[in-house]
Amino acid sequence: MTDSVLAQLDAVLAARKSGDRSDSGSPSYVSSLYAAGLDAILKKVGEEAAETLIAAKNGDRDQLVHETADLWFHTLVMLADQGLSAQDVLAELDRRLGTSGIVEKASR
Amino acid sequence: MTDSVLAQLDAVLAARKSGDRSDSGSPSYVSSLYAAGLDAILKKVGEEAAETLIAAKNGDRDQLVHETADLWFHTLVMLADQGLSAQDVLAELDRRLGTSGIVEKASR
Amino acid sequence: MTDSVLAQLDAVLAARKSGDRSDSGSPSYVSSLYAAGLDAILKKVGEEAAETLIAAKNGDRDQLVHETADLWFHTLVMLADQGLSAQDVLAELDRRLGTSGIVEKASR
Amino acid sequence: MTDSVLAQLDAVLAARKSGDRSDSGSPSYVSSLYAAGLDAILKKVGEEAAETLIAAKNGDRDQLVHETADLWFHTLVMLADQGLSAQDVLAELDRRLGTSGIVEKASR
Repeated sequence: MTDSVLAQLDAVLAARKSGDRSDSGSPSYVSSLYAAGLDAILKKVGEEAAETLIAAKNGDRDQLVHETADLWFHTLVMLADQGLSAQDVLAELDRRLGTSGIVEKASR
Repeated sequence: MTDSVLAQLDAVLAARKSGDRSDSGSPSYVSSLYAAGLDAILKKVGEEAAETLIAAKNGDRDQLVHETADLWFHTLVMLADQGLSAQDVLAELDRRLGTSGIVEKASR
Repeated sequence: MTDSVLAQLDAVLAARKSGDRSDSGSPSYVSSLYAAGLDAILKKVGEEAAETLIAAKNGDRDQLVHETADLWFHTLVMLADQGLSAQDVLAELDRRLGTSGIVEKASR
Repeated sequence: MTDSVLAQLDAVLAARKSGDRSDSGSPSYVSSLYAAGLDAILKKVGEEAAETLIAAKNGDRDQLVHETADLWFHTLVMLADQGLSAQDVLAELDRRLGTSGIVEKASR
């Protein structure tokens, strides 16, 4: 069921970017991020990365899941802002999985 | 098709963590990360976050997809190291999607 | 003249930490950071590091000086919170300078 | 005594940048960073910021001083690469100190 969460988020983020607010009359958090621009989005990505590290060091699993979700979410906004989506990242990860010894080569 | 990439990665990372190397006789990159410990994994997460920001500022879409994949991948290793998985993060994102106005509330 | 700026900041930050507000009747930004705790301070360090990277990529020298000052400032608050000061970091850098080939060995 | 450490580092880093290797016949770590370019330097800044956060969370004061020194050092290389120096950052911090309520206004 959760398998399609990223695809759903891709759709929501793309719709927001194109200005479609049929599901909501008020400006959204995401709309305000797009309006603030790439630097503002990247600042949030950096901030959430720091919070993820802190949560991991705290050994707090609930906090870690929450902060990692925040980090992924803001990378999705960043991707959408650049005309990309989670599907591009999943395809790249899939390509690595398809390679023998995938995980060994996941990072250069 | 790519929908199950994260689930497959979860399985690979969990197997590596439990020491299952049936698919490979040699120590893997992931095995060496687990052995190096949480701090080494978090250092990589921070490093990949920085590279993601740099790629986005370069306006290089291929580089951005590659670095975001690296960032997600190392957060998956971090989650596995802490007994968690991508499924926990997807469930959290799904929970937010289920909430009306989800994206507005995605970040506190 | 600027040589003693860090020493002055060390003094201000140590005074704030001990609760000395003789120079101000109102709670300061720094006092609020100390009260929020180490995680809140580290979150700011991570945030300012991201902003420094963004400023550098923008090629905006004024922004880069401003963000680097923010980054150093929040590391000073972090050091003071942990009972350390800029002097400890300067002593470490001095130690490296004293070593022949210092800069080569500055990073391991 | 340590007051002039940053000024000395500024001088060393500027000399390296201009290709002056009178004090050393071999390529230095800093020279290799300059040669690798701004992105490589920024990657190091991001990496050292992450290590600083980890050290602070470990409550290891020696490690924290060491990692903060690494972080400052790499920001100095970044500044030199951009034709700036520690003096520019110290002047900005001094300007803030000169403002009444300095620390309150140190971060916007």
